[in-house]
Amino acid sequence: MPEFSFTIEAECSTSWARAGTIQTPHGEIPTPIFMPVGTQATVKSVSPEELKAAGAKIILANTYHLMLRPGSPLIDSFGGLHPFMHWDGPMLTDSGGFQVWSLGHLRKLSEDGVVFKSHLDGSTHTLTPERVMQIEAELGADIVLPLDICAPYPSTPRDAKEAMERTHRWEERALRAKERYRPEQTLFGIVQGAFESDLRRESARIIGNMPFPGLSIGGLSVGEPKEMLWEMLSYVTPELPRNKPRHLLGVGSPEDLVIGVGLGVDMFDCVLPTRVARHGGLFTQSGRVNIKASRFRSQRGPVEEDCTCYTCRNYSAAYVHHLIRTEEQLYYRLGSIHNLHFMLHLADQLRTAILADRYPAFRDDFLARYVPASERIREEQRNKWKIAMSRQV
Amino acid sequence: MPEFSFTIEAECSTSWARAGTIQTPHGEIPTPIFMPVGTQATVKSVSPEELKAAGAKIILANTYHLMLRPGSPLIDSFGGLHPFMHWDGPMLTDSGGFQVWSLGHLRKLSEDGVVFKSHLDGSTHTLTPERVMQIEAELGADIVLPLDICAPYPSTPRDAKEAMERTHRWEERALRAKERYRPEQTLFGIVQGAFESDLRRESARIIGNMPFPGLSIGGLSVGEPKEMLWEMLSYVTPELPRNKPRHLLGVGSPEDLVIGVGLGVDMFDCVLPTRVARHGGLFTQSGRVNIKASRFRSQRGPVEEDCTCYTCRNYSAAYVHHLIRTEEQLYYRLGSIHNLHFMLHLADQLRTAILADRYPAFRDDFLARYVPASERIREEQRNKWKIAMSRQV
Repeated sequence: MPEFSFTIEAECSTSWARAGTIQTPHGEIPTPIFMPVGTQATVKSVSPEELKAAGAKIILANTYHLMLRPGSPLIDSFGGLHPFMHWDGPMLTDSGGFQVWSLGHLRKLSEDGVVFKSHLDGSTHTLTPERVMQIEAELGADIVLPLDICAPYPSTPRDAKEAMERTHRWEERALRAKERYRPEQTLFGIVQGAFESDLRRESARIIGNMPFPGLSIGGLSVGEPKEMLWEMLSYVTPELPRNKPRHLLGVGSPEDLVIGVGLGVDMFDCVLPTRVARHGGLFTQSGRVNIKASRFRSQRGPVEEDCTCYTCRNYSAAYVHHLIRTEEQLYYRLGSIHNLHFMLHLADQLRTAILADRYPAFRDDFLARYVPASERIREEQRNKWKIAMSRQV
Repeated sequence: MPEFSFTIEAECSTSWARAGTIQTPHGEIPTPIFMPVGTQATVKSVSPEELKAAGAKIILANTYHLMLRPGSPLIDSFGGLHPFMHWDGPMLTDSGGFQVWSLGHLRKLSEDGVVFKSHLDGSTHTLTPERVMQIEAELGADIVLPLDICAPYPSTPRDAKEAMERTHRWEERALRAKERYRPEQTLFGIVQGAFESDLRRESARIIGNMPFPGLSIGGLSVGEPKEMLWEMLSYVTPELPRNKPRHLLGVGSPEDLVIGVGLGVDMFDCVLPTRVARHGGLFTQSGRVNIKASRFRSQRGPVEEDCTCYTCRNYSAAYVHHLIRTEEQLYYRLGSIHNLHFMLHLADQLRTAILADRYPAFRDDFLARYVPASERIREEQRNKWKIAMSRQV
């Protein structure tokens, strides 16, 4: 039996928010939780000790990137990702599916699986539900995800349905394969269904009833308006079994965390907090600020008063501003630590609010004072990212 | 009276090596010592806590860079560099002279001082011996250096003599100016004289007898063969008063440290350990290795067995190799920490050897087993650096 359990400690009386505890072989995870992303077996610029100090309880690593470099057999020969990257807490690996669609080239999709060319060197690789279970067994995370098909936005209802049904068949294959490779790992199911309300409901029912101890919700945050994401989630949550933790893949920002919790999400992961930090965007209780702005040039106080992160406890906003202006590497670390601490502290605040049954008030307060990045800034960042990705090819 | 003192604890019976202790307002410094360089108020990619853990006792910051960005008045308004950069140990600032020659443009040299254009934005700045003392007072380091003229290699004997004599006059002006701005700072003298044995001896005698509590040796390691550096040093040391600490500016590598100590040097500073680390060059007891090399791809042990640095205690060479191959920022930190620890541990080993009067045996053992970077690699690195510098203009 895998050492995995999920206990619910409190449920909001007026929303789907809940507070709980996930038990894994590498430790406990209080929920709601934000999971920092360590794409290439490192959360960019942050050490494992700093992740812990910032409040991280579980991190995510990307199967797609690690299977290409340094390769899962090498990581396996070191005893898995935990010793390889010097992280001894809980860990989750995704299936690589999403990156095959977003980064890989010349994909060939069949019932068996997907053939793609690496974005690094053009080499050809095949992923099947079974092969992904083997790779994730070699990586050795506590929680693993099955190969899925992430339908693009927009998709026709017919394409969405086909992708969902094939994903469901692949998930059944993944369940069987996992038992062959590393039965002690916890395999989450993935709900798909694109942007069709009936498909989302159907997928939630089918995957929710399969023997997965936890459920990830995929195929969202792929370019659709935010309102559509929340709408889709509102179809999914009511269909999911209460006693399994719910993970919303690839989301999000501080405001996403606050809203998503109310729609029943327990676990979040996203590169956004560290990525925007590297470009100067730092989170504060009143919204996202750009630390490059000249108004910080001589600010004696920290980036945020009363913030208890390493950055704010030890450095003035003026010094952080100086570091990014001079493109010093220490900046990327200090900015990333601040944003990760913000996300983890926010998850903790949400948990406290749910335990006291005052989540709706907390949410409304937060959203009233937090000014997210403007749509213009968001669009610019998306475009920069797309250009950067296309250059990697 | 400044809280500065230098005590000699042991002297080698067969070389000029000695072991001592420097007292400063921010703490003690055992000598011989290597000083990590924090060019822009940060030792690239390493935090102050990590510097301490690596054994750093004193760090150096560059007046030229800081006067341009963020400017010394801003740093002064924060109470100086110590609180600004969150380093509470001893600190030394150079005079900016060397960078004016190596980075600045359109210099105009006169008896008064030097006019140059910033390599960042072309803005015009004037440095005089008095102005440098004012800027260094605003930066607030424990040890400060006076404006000097670093004659290029090669120089004519006449040019070398003129530069030396003007430097001597500037140093007298610096001594007077320092009393006006921040008398509690410790002003070291700088010995010049280019590559003329008689000038080196003369400068050592003159500067050595002026009321400087410590002495820096400048104008070396500017492109001349290493043998010439050591030869020049051998003219300088015998002329210097025994009771003042000696600092060799801008040197060097592990082998330089070992040789320089035998020629009477107490303090070293150089960007080399962190710069070569960023390009993959890591120090080991048997020489410099390139961690990018494929032989490290699956090396289970650390970069160096028995090394007690953070990197080697916690990560395999294979992981460090993976990080540099994937250009992950954590690499730059782990590599820099390892090399700084190596230099500081080496300084400590030298000190122990001197205290036991077995420095010559330690030196010979070290040089017999340590394979420095090849001349070809060294030349390539110099060229890359020159290209990088010219691009900054």
